[in-house]
Order: sequence, then C-alpha cells, then structure tokens
Amino acid sequence: MAEKRYLMTPGPTPVPPEVLAELARPVIHHRERDYREIYGRCLVRLREVYRTEHDVLMFTSSGTGALESAVANLTSPGDRQLVLSAGNFGERWAGIGRAFGADLVHARLEWGETPEAEDLRSALAEAGDVRVVYLTHSETSTGVVCDVQSLAAVAKDAGALVVVDAVSSLGAVPLETDAWGIDVVVSGSQKALMTPPGIAFVSVSPEALEAAGRSSAQRYVFDWERTRNAQAKLDAPFTPAVSIVRALDVALGLLLDEGLEEGFNRHARLGRACREGAKAMGLELFSPDEDRSAVVTAIRPPEGVDATEVVSALRDRFGITIANGQGALKGKIFRIGHIGWFDVFDITTALAAVELVLADAGAEIERGIAVTRALDAWAEHAAV
Amino acid sequence: MAEKRYLMTPGPTPVPPEVLAELARPVIHHRERDYREIYGRCLVRLREVYRTEHDVLMFTSSGTGALESAVANLTSPGDRQLVLSAGNFGERWAGIGRAFGADLVHARLEWGETPEAEDLRSALAEAGDVRVVYLTHSETSTGVVCDVQSLAAVAKDAGALVVVDAVSSLGAVPLETDAWGIDVVVSGSQKALMTPPGIAFVSVSPEALEAAGRSSAQRYVFDWERTRNAQAKLDAPFTPAVSIVRALDVALGLLLDEGLEEGFNRHARLGRACREGAKAMGLELFSPDEDRSAVVTAIRPPEGVDATEVVSALRDRFGITIANGQGALKGKIFRIGHIGWFDVFDITTALAAVELVLADAGAEIERGIAVTRALDAWAEHAAV
Repeated sequence: MAEKRYLMTPGPTPVPPEVLAELARPVIHHRERDYREIYGRCLVRLREVYRTEHDVLMFTSSGTGALESAVANLTSPGDRQLVLSAGNFGERWAGIGRAFGADLVHARLEWGETPEAEDLRSALAEAGDVRVVYLTHSETSTGVVCDVQSLAAVAKDAGALVVVDAVSSLGAVPLETDAWGIDVVVSGSQKALMTPPGIAFVSVSPEALEAAGRSSAQRYVFDWERTRNAQAKLDAPFTPAVSIVRALDVALGLLLDEGLEEGFNRHARLGRACREGAKAMGLELFSPDEDRSAVVTAIRPPEGVDATEVVSALRDRFGITIANGQGALKGKIFRIGHIGWFDVFDITTALAAVELVLADAGAEIERGIAVTRALDAWAEHAAV
Repeated sequence: MAEKRYLMTPGPTPVPPEVLAELARPVIHHRERDYREIYGRCLVRLREVYRTEHDVLMFTSSGTGALESAVANLTSPGDRQLVLSAGNFGERWAGIGRAFGADLVHARLEWGETPEAEDLRSALAEAGDVRVVYLTHSETSTGVVCDVQSLAAVAKDAGALVVVDAVSSLGAVPLETDAWGIDVVVSGSQKALMTPPGIAFVSVSPEALEAAGRSSAQRYVFDWERTRNAQAKLDAPFTPAVSIVRALDVALGLLLDEGLEEGFNRHARLGRACREGAKAMGLELFSPDEDRSAVVTAIRPPEGVDATEVVSALRDRFGITIANGQGALKGKIFRIGHIGWFDVFDITTALAAVELVLADAGAEIERGIAVTRALDAWAEHAAV
C-alpha cells in the first residue's frame, strides 16, 4: 500500500484538499475576466489578512524574491540600513542588502535569541542615521517569534522605514501591518496561507512607495511601481502563476472563514501542545516556551542523539517530514512545524513518532506521556 | 451547464489532464528524497529538450524573471550590448538591459518584421565592440519565428555572447542550444512545455558562466552561481514551486514520449492548418506564411472589424480565449496560439468560431471553407 505521508515542516506546509483540487482545474488566461475576478478577490483578501489599507503586491517568486523586492526598491548604493538578525532568515536580509550595495549595519544576535526593543534601540543609536530597518517576525530557523510591534515602534521613533519578513508568521500569529506602523511586510503562499510555494507578497505603505521612487538599485520584475500600476488595473506585468493564485484564493477563503483571531488562537494552542508534549517526554526546548512562538517548535535531541538521525528516522520509518536545524544548528535541533492546515492530532502524531524514534535510539525517554500531555494542554486552552 | 472553455492563447497554454492531476497531489518538501528524484529527472529532461550538455538553471518566476537573470548575470554598468528586436518581447530585452545599466544598442525593426542575419551583421558593425547580443526566437507578439541559428552565427563571429528568448518556442520549433552555439537560452513552463506558469529556465554555456563571474549587476534570487551551486547538489537556494515542478516533470515526460521531432512536425502542421484555414476564409495573415512560424498565427481582421471585438465575441459567445494584438497592434490583429497540448480540432474550433463571429459582424467572409481547408492542410503533411 502507498505509504501515508506527513508534511510537518515550517514550509512548505500541508495544503487542504479544497486547495489541491483547485490546482487541478484547467489553466485560464491571466487577462481573462474569470481570472481577474479571482485575482481581485485575492488582493482584497490579502489586505484583510495583512490588516492593511495599502496595496499588497504579488510576485511570482519564492518568499526570498519578495524580500529582494523590498531591498531593491528601498536601496540606493551607500544607503545606511540596519538588519537586526538572530538566525538564518535574519541573515538573509543582510545578504540581500549587501548584494544591493547598502551601507549595511548588521546587528547580529546569536541564533535562538529573541530580538528585543532594547537591542534595536542601542544598535540604532550606534549606527547613526539609518533609513531602513529590516526585521524578521518569525525566525523559522530557531522558532523565535519576536515582539515586532515594539521593535517597529523603536525603528519608527528613529525615523526609519520598517520592513518585516513575515513569511512564516502571517496568518499564524497576530500581525497588524497598519496599526503597528510597518511600512513593508513580506510573506509567501507556502506557510500559514496553506497554498503551494510559488507566489509571494509585499505590503507597501505610502512612505515606502515614496522611498522606492528615490531608489536607484537595479530591478525589473521586482519593481514595485511596475507591479502596482498593473495591479491597479487588475493586471500583472508578467504572466503570474495562475494556478497558484486560484489555489491561494480558496485557501484565503478558508482562513478568513475560520477567522483570523480563531486561527491565531489555534496556532497558539498547537504550539503549546507541541511544547508541553516535548517537555513531558523529557526533552529540552530550543525555541522559547511562550505563546507567541507558535510557528515551529525547535527541540534539542537528548544527549548523544544527533538531530539528523531523528529527522531521517522519522522520514524513513514513518513517512514524516520534519526539519533539521540550519547552519551551525544542523544536527543540534530538530524542528516540528505547525502552521496552516494543522490540528492537534498532527502534533500528537509527530510527538508519538519522535518518542518512538528516540527510545529506539537508546535515549532515556519517558514513554507514553507526551501525547496525553499535548492533548491536555490543547484542551486547557479552549478556542476563542 | 458549465460553459466549455477553450484556451487558445500563446501562453499560458492548455495543460494535459495528467499534468493537472499531478498538481493536485499533496505538497512535498523540496529537500525530501521524493522531490529530489522528481527534480533531478526534470533537470535531465530539460537538458534533453534544450539539446544542451550544459546546466539548465531553474527559477521560480515568470519567463521575464529568467530574461532578467540573463541580463543581471551578464552585465556590468556601461557594458556595450545589443538587442535586435521586432516586437514586444524583443523590446522587453531592451527594457531590462537599460534597467541594469548596459550601454545598450537597440536595433529596432518594425513589429512583424523577421530579423535576418544581415540586420544583425550591420547592426553589429555599426555598434562596434559588443559583448552580448540578445535575440528573440519566437516573437509572440507578432507570430514571427526567426532563423536564430543564422543570427547566432553572426553574433558568435563578432565575438559576442548570444542570449536567446525561447520562452514560446522551446519544444514547439527546432532549437539546438549547443549545436548552434547559443550561450543562454531562456524558456518558461507555460508555453509549449504544457505546464502552468510559475517556473522558468536558463541554459548557461561555460562562456556565459565565466562572463557572469565578472558581472557586477545587482542580483540575488536570479544569481546564476547561487542557483547552479544548489542544483549541483540537487538542491534549490530558495523554496521552489514544488507543485509546478512535479507537473513539469509529467509534461516533459509526455513531450519526450511523443519525441521532439514529432512535436516540431505537429506544430508545423498545426500552424499550416491554421494559416490555410484563415486564408481560405479570405483573411490576411499578419505573421509569416512559413513553416517556422508555428507558435502563434497572427491574423488581420477584415476591413472595418476591430480585432478587440473578435477577441471579446469569441470569449463571450463561445468561451474561447485567443489573444489581441499588443501595443500599437491592439485591435489591428488577433492571435491564435497553437503550442503545446493542441491538435488539429483545436484549430478547426478556433477557425469555425472566428468565421461565425466575423460573418455576424457583417464582414465578407466565405463561409464553410476554413475548417475543410485546415483539415486538408493538416492531412497533406503527414506525421514524421
């Protein structure tokens, strides 16, 4: 019999059957009335999910392409900009900034630390006149979700534009683009938005658009003005990934039907269930034990067990895909994603399998507690 | 009853049911073994379709993104480069080149002209020392497919790198990347490769890679070296559009099962059938009446009829989507695409509907001849 498969990484994430079914519909042309209706509805729904009144621009790209669009539209060679990073994706901002010739100040925290307002305040004070601050809402490599509201406030106080990577957080944890004064929020289809990878998004405040008008960095497909002008006519400057856009429309409908607040609460409960289960079997968390970090739970394997073995065994024995650590954390942590189309039994499946694999590897694991504890933690915090 | 729909534009093109079904399969992770197998097979199949021994790099983007990658990797500010254009997509090369700071010579033919070796030779002689020549194999806006082999030879003689936009031609008309000495060939998933839009490709010769090492243009996701290093390990630097890649794998399998030569012959016959049918009803062709121009047939409406009306009527009355003219040709021509998953009855459907719409618009159209003539033209030229 075909093996059952379980996708439990922090992206790509599992896609609901209604969304998969939409992908299989015949291709339509992107300048046709049918598509424009779907596309227009998607753009409205994206603004709702983003909680913004401003434009959300859509690109056919990975999330990184949309990150690049932010840098390319906000940078002229030599511009002083600041990246506050504490993991792989924060460092990606720095890599892109350097590629586009920014005079980059990189305030680099240890991977796994939670960037705090004070970190940003002191980095900005030291850096002098900074025009753009790049932040990472959910650092997928470590499981940390920062308090981006307070960080954004510090950056605004300093007179800088605030750009936030929310690729893995949008739709999973609260993010108020306009109310928190965030100029640019980047996200992608393949995380909490429950759609296959292939399209990515950027919200743009009037101030960000004005700055883009002054930027001289080289860009073409990621140019905001070109995309915005096309979107104003419900057009796209280049052939979009029509099948993925249709799928996104269905997924955003599901997400908004559940309700954003209900979704945030569900993710908080999923994270709690996962952490409580992991702790119950005696494991140490790498990601913070707090409600906000509800995107991915990063866990240290017991002494003497390599995380790479855990990841491989889950895959080979049970068809379960979780994520290894990245960079220097490879082999040191494993990560269970729980954003998007997840419920508590996905968490108990992951925990039960991890427990078995670790026990078989000879680790001292307390058997039979994790699943029950996860279900209890889930129940203790009822839905809103 | 749900209206039947007919997608007859030169991209996106209709996708075979096997390919659509593949899109609906559950999402898998791009670093998982299953995906790597599919991805590796795709890369091998792409090289076969490209007829190259060199790498074919894959990007999550529109075709234009892959065009941008060529310019961004081959340009340093002030580099002397030449674009030979005769339509909308040729001019796109010039737009991208200017965005990346090339010292651009734009040899601009009228839209609808066929670029000849002599045009390129004289343009190069006038331009002086040109490092890169950008060509358009199939100019989708006009229906012209040029003799890119002879053009490439002229560019090589002048010591320039040759870069070809083959977005709508690859898989439809013969293209020998290595044998014709073409350094860079750009294509996309959504044309003759019978896959939804979302991924695009670039073949890179060793000379092109060497030049990329010297280029200082700003780039990140479109950087060839980063992508090539990842592909060498069957990895991708950024989350790829996994569902579209799976679909492409199936589509390339179908295409190679038919055989490239058989596919080229089928496209030549489809083009012939379309042209003969159009002429039989008394219409004037805008695209050349020659076998090579087998991607899209551009047709002038009869005196007094606006092409925009034809396009709208086909859509509104019969659910048939064809393409209008672009730019100054809007309203002046209509375009019937016939690349990818097409057979002769798609052509007869398009012709029958065009005939009816034109007759109802009061045009002097000879009724009842086009379909028969198209079928005869198809039969006169047997399959290889």
